[in-house]
Amino acid sequence: MRISLIVDIVRNEEKLLAEEIKKRAIGLEVLNVSQEPLELGRKVMDVEFAIIRTISMFRSLYSSAILEGQGIRTINNSKAINLCNDKILAYIELQKNDIKIPRTIIAFSQDSTLKAYKTIGFPLVDKPPIGSWGRLVSLIRDSIEGKAIIEHRELMNSSQLKVHVVQEYVNKVNRDIRCIVIGEDLLGCYARNSPKDDWRSNIALGGFPSKIEVDEELAKIAIKASKVLGVEFSGVDILEHEEKGYLVNEVNSTPEFKGFMSALNINVAEALVNYIIEKIKK
Amino acid sequence: MRISLIVDIVRNEEKLLAEEIKKRAIGLEVLNVSQEPLELGRKVMDVEFAIIRTISMFRSLYSSAILEGQGIRTINNSKAINLCNDKILAYIELQKNDIKIPRTIIAFSQDSTLKAYKTIGFPLVDKPPIGSWGRLVSLIRDSIEGKAIIEHRELMNSSQLKVHVVQEYVNKVNRDIRCIVIGEDLLGCYARNSPKDDWRSNIALGGFPSKIEVDEELAKIAIKASKVLGVEFSGVDILEHEEKGYLVNEVNSTPEFKGFMSALNINVAEALVNYIIEKIKK
Amino acid sequence: MRISLIVDIVRNEEKLLAEEIKKRAIGLEVLNVSQEPLELGRKVMDVEFAIIRTISMFRSLYSSAILEGQGIRTINNSKAINLCNDKILAYIELQKNDIKIPRTIIAFSQDSTLKAYKTIGFPLVDKPPIGSWGRLVSLIRDSIEGKAIIEHRELMNSSQLKVHVVQEYVNKVNRDIRCIVIGEDLLGCYARNSPKDDWRSNIALGGFPSKIEVDEELAKIAIKASKVLGVEFSGVDILEHEEKGYLVNEVNSTPEFKGFMSALNINVAEALVNYIIEKIKK
Amino acid sequence: MRISLIVDIVRNEEKLLAEEIKKRAIGLEVLNVSQEPLELGRKVMDVEFAIIRTISMFRSLYSSAILEGQGIRTINNSKAINLCNDKILAYIELQKNDIKIPRTIIAFSQDSTLKAYKTIGFPLVDKPPIGSWGRLVSLIRDSIEGKAIIEHRELMNSSQLKVHVVQEYVNKVNRDIRCIVIGEDLLGCYARNSPKDDWRSNIALGGFPSKIEVDEELAKIAIKASKVLGVEFSGVDILEHEEKGYLVNEVNSTPEFKGFMSALNINVAEALVNYIIEKIKK
Repeated sequence: MRISLIVDIVRNEEKLLAEEIKKRAIGLEVLNVSQEPLELGRKVMDVEFAIIRTISMFRSLYSSAILEGQGIRTINNSKAINLCNDKILAYIELQKNDIKIPRTIIAFSQDSTLKAYKTIGFPLVDKPPIGSWGRLVSLIRDSIEGKAIIEHRELMNSSQLKVHVVQEYVNKVNRDIRCIVIGEDLLGCYARNSPKDDWRSNIALGGFPSKIEVDEELAKIAIKASKVLGVEFSGVDILEHEEKGYLVNEVNSTPEFKGFMSALNINVAEALVNYIIEKIKK
Repeated sequence: MRISLIVDIVRNEEKLLAEEIKKRAIGLEVLNVSQEPLELGRKVMDVEFAIIRTISMFRSLYSSAILEGQGIRTINNSKAINLCNDKILAYIELQKNDIKIPRTIIAFSQDSTLKAYKTIGFPLVDKPPIGSWGRLVSLIRDSIEGKAIIEHRELMNSSQLKVHVVQEYVNKVNRDIRCIVIGEDLLGCYARNSPKDDWRSNIALGGFPSKIEVDEELAKIAIKASKVLGVEFSGVDILEHEEKGYLVNEVNSTPEFKGFMSALNINVAEALVNYIIEKIKK
Repeated sequence: MRISLIVDIVRNEEKLLAEEIKKRAIGLEVLNVSQEPLELGRKVMDVEFAIIRTISMFRSLYSSAILEGQGIRTINNSKAINLCNDKILAYIELQKNDIKIPRTIIAFSQDSTLKAYKTIGFPLVDKPPIGSWGRLVSLIRDSIEGKAIIEHRELMNSSQLKVHVVQEYVNKVNRDIRCIVIGEDLLGCYARNSPKDDWRSNIALGGFPSKIEVDEELAKIAIKASKVLGVEFSGVDILEHEEKGYLVNEVNSTPEFKGFMSALNINVAEALVNYIIEKIKK
Repeated sequence: MRISLIVDIVRNEEKLLAEEIKKRAIGLEVLNVSQEPLELGRKVMDVEFAIIRTISMFRSLYSSAILEGQGIRTINNSKAINLCNDKILAYIELQKNDIKIPRTIIAFSQDSTLKAYKTIGFPLVDKPPIGSWGRLVSLIRDSIEGKAIIEHRELMNSSQLKVHVVQEYVNKVNRDIRCIVIGEDLLGCYARNSPKDDWRSNIALGGFPSKIEVDEELAKIAIKASKVLGVEFSGVDILEHEEKGYLVNEVNSTPEFKGFMSALNINVAEALVNYIIEKIKK
């Protein structure tokens, strides 16, 4: 039995996964795709499974797809990564499957973004369809703030960053809930609370974790959201809306889990490797 | 019966489609997505079918996915557009289904791109995974040219444009073949010949059309490539390799067909509208 | 006597200048620098004077410098354009010469910009050193707005746009004053009032003109600011500070004058051509 | 006596300068402008002289100008940095003062760049007006290479990078000469030879140093080029043209001198600090 770890920059999470794999006496092959080019249709590794852990989302997507093309099973697989990488495609898929999301309007130009702002009403959230760690996710409280953000996005050199995902601002509490799901099991959930000087609760932006009670509905939603998008190892971000209840805000297909581990004291690496071994044995 | 035409900038092709739809006494709804924002999950149009014809590939992808989420059938559908927009994902899918493509190596960094160059050998082609009209598709004849291109791509502000699709240069003849497929029927094929001052044969770059004999294999490949990617209306670009024969280079999910019409005198708009009417009736 | 008009896109202002020159029976040579390359040190035109009127500031700067290198007098000359194009260099020059400007701190990184925000205090203005028509000039009212702007600027692909010019917000009235100076004469001043939905008063952003009384101090400042920067034809933007009085906010070396003409009914083109003829005759 | 060292990233050169200053028992103040914002018109340091050593050229320009505005002498001063940073402005200044440069045409658009290529003839060099370490300096050997470079530059998000400096390729030998000048004294010259896999000879690109004979003309040109641009501490890059002789290709106002020191065994830091002490004493 051999497992590969696909990385670019090796974080603490990847080290934990590597240790966990070695501990089980499973063969480990670490592939740094920022150094090695990958040929389409040419198998370079003799492994059953590859864990995709690059920081760059395009590297995740492409290395996953390339390895699958060589007959290697991947977690996550490229279809799931493709959906999760793109907030618009993910929202549509979730909504089609009756999972609640924040009210969302997509706008493709400056003028149409202003129209979307008017429809949603301030305060609102505007973000591009791609991006991690809360980057470029903007709270828009009036048209002055909105115009500034639109203007800045227009000057970025990527047509994808000029697409606006305009959403209601769900502000019941200054936190979101992050759940980790492996296969069809919920590993746990914790809250990420916004720091004083930011409205976002991403750990990368200073958000700090706290424990929460996990009710049945929350568990159900996290598991279903992962399933619908085809993600086997996921970080599901959930907002709490005063009237609508739980809303899925994002599903991450290469979740960081340092914050999760420190908040809940759950060994994510162990659980993930267990899951993969099960899968290989089947 | 009502059909919608989804556009941003209206080219000659879109005008022909609109005329063709009106001629049949079918209700036509033109939606300019550069002006109108689209709300997820909220049906704005009462149409059976939407023809996706925006110039921007992200607008195509998202408007197609949004309309499908509202229960409207689209041509092309968002899964097909998603695959065709991304040359890497498309190549992998084609190759998995035994359709021949040029030898292709994917590299995610400057150093690894130089390694890929070494493996393929000069002359070679380097292009990013996304882009239309031959843009940023570069012929690399030695390491000086290669380093210049790598350096320029590094300074672009899009992580996707920094991914290198490195390919063998297929140069038997200075042309490629463009076939148009609707459903499972091949509408026709013609050659696009490179102009004197460019090695690429895109019409947008001065390529000029000429007639060719369509043999059975060519027809089979064009139809299969479209089917494998799930594209119902496609422009398939095919290269002729001295030893390997026909290689699929790209499948376009929002094909321009001005050049095709002038070369072959085939009414593409009529054929497409016929196809859609058939589909609606079923 | 021959005069050249250096343009890229021809606006109404350039048409007025061309008509005015022809009216005087002076030879006119229009040079579109977006079409014609310019060789260093090789005289292409036999003119005494060139009026620099390109929309692009780099085209202004370089065409002015190149023509001067060929012995042609330019209005404005490249040294003045260079200073006016760069808000930081201009502010320093103005301040050295005892012309009051808004309190200004320059920051070169994200962290140091946050420090500058703290020193100035909210609300404040953050803008890059280059740019026209109020573009990227942002009103920052709290740290949420500030962090969003910093984050967006960081993702732009120009090291110059990542430099932050952080300033006190001068908000006595929702307007600024625009004066046009030719040589050492003040042609006039008018107010540009912010539209309802923007805090900026640029005409390009919906600002509307109104008449004002020009007192002696205002006239003196506008003329001195132009002189200090070496601009012979300038649009001087002046703010009114409750305690500090008039503050020079910007000096434009290729001023648009449509708004000025409609507000004050003064023939700017005529005045400018008169000035140039005087200069040539001396 | 107190001297300040203005830095962002501290290289070996800056460490040598700091040691040299301390050795003389002169007060040293290191200012990291990537951490500290700088207020216009507000003196923060009590020093007579500031050595500008930031890697970023805009940080060099602005910190130099800001310190001068506070009455501090700088080496180099902002006027010199401004000219040296901009290859077009520098070339014009050199040519006006009868210093030979390579034949150079400036083009502001794709079409006009192609015209410039035709006038100069292949092989030629195309580079943007700004940039260090040979970055984006491209050797263009035919129209295929030229079109690729033009296309890539067009997609960069900086209007300055879209300006093309088109030059004859001076290829007598695969090297250029780098001279260091302090005040009116030539410290020395050495050759930088292109590595096997690049046509450029920048040390950052693998260029390797070798000794050369310095004739009188070379010395004269290096000193005059520095003087004409107002640079007191400069790295002058000189090409050898078969017929025209020495051509000045670039003058650097924040020269790296590691390569110089290892080739010639001359203590640059010592010489520079000596020069500054002399200046302060006067």
